[in-house]
Amino acid sequence: MRKLILGVAVSLDGFIEGPNGEYDWCLTDQDYGLSDFFKRLDALFIGRKTYEMMLAMGDDPSPGFPRLKEYVFSTTLDKVKEGAILIRGDIKNEVEKIKNEKGKDIWLFGGASLTTSLMNLGLVDELSLAVHPILLGSGKPLFQNIRARINVNLIDTKKYSSGLVSLTYTVG
Amino acid sequence: MRKLILGVAVSLDGFIEGPNGEYDWCLTDQDYGLSDFFKRLDALFIGRKTYEMMLAMGDDPSPGFPRLKEYVFSTTLDKVKEGAILIRGDIKNEVEKIKNEKGKDIWLFGGASLTTSLMNLGLVDELSLAVHPILLGSGKPLFQNIRARINVNLIDTKKYSSGLVSLTYTVG
Repeated sequence: MRKLILGVAVSLDGFIEGPNGEYDWCLTDQDYGLSDFFKRLDALFIGRKTYEMMLAMGDDPSPGFPRLKEYVFSTTLDKVKEGAILIRGDIKNEVEKIKNEKGKDIWLFGGASLTTSLMNLGLVDELSLAVHPILLGSGKPLFQNIRARINVNLIDTKKYSSGLVSLTYTVG
Repeated sequence: MRKLILGVAVSLDGFIEGPNGEYDWCLTDQDYGLSDFFKRLDALFIGRKTYEMMLAMGDDPSPGFPRLKEYVFSTTLDKVKEGAILIRGDIKNEVEKIKNEKGKDIWLFGGASLTTSLMNLGLVDELSLAVHPILLGSGKPLFQNIRARINVNLIDTKKYSSGLVSLTYTVG
């Protein structure tokens, strides 16, 4: 079965964005294992807010960014851009169906609300956290409203000269 | 100068206690570098709540726990137990004075409120976080009300068979 991987940059105090949506603190001076990560993937899960932010930023993918089948999770949107797929029904069934399809692994990119829903439903298989050497103090927490304790299993750590630490866990 | 080291166990989602004060998730099956850590120390900084919790638990130190000079930070207490020192004045001056005294390093054990004050005053020199392989979902965050971004420098990582990762940073 395809794995659903939450892959995000996070500050040492657990924020994925600063208080005004800032992500200027995210290090981009090195590859940080992203090329290898991208090779595992052929699909992307994003929530509505992330989708709209990405639309606003324009459709040019970042250099080195893989071509991924885009699934947009929203209860309010009626349609999404050409090529993307809108998921607005029963998330659990829909995600299980997609995970059972043939394909490579799936990148759960965010945001916080979609991440929380999928974590609480037990649908996330792996966490890949790029822990940045900074305290933001405030902002949007990576995890919100997780309903019960979730045990995770460390499978890999990597540290980089910049002080970024990559932590990889399987879930459950 | 003596270093002030924040040394705590933290869940992967950044909590130092569960929603009801639980710390049953803290791993104690191995030494996790604590013996070496304790050798660096001869003093302990704690806030009032932590002090009262430790008093309530009785005065027997845990096995292997070093004898440390105890400084209790409180604006409300009038006195503390024999041997301990109450700090209730100008925190910045008092802490700088203690750090300039002869001695080994100082363990900032918590709680969250004292940690925040000392972080915001720029008095913490090192972070030593034992990141546990669990999401608690809710509880007491390690950092609260940090006022501005704080850059930290990674100096060490260690991973253990249990999945605990020890991350050590200098501050500033």
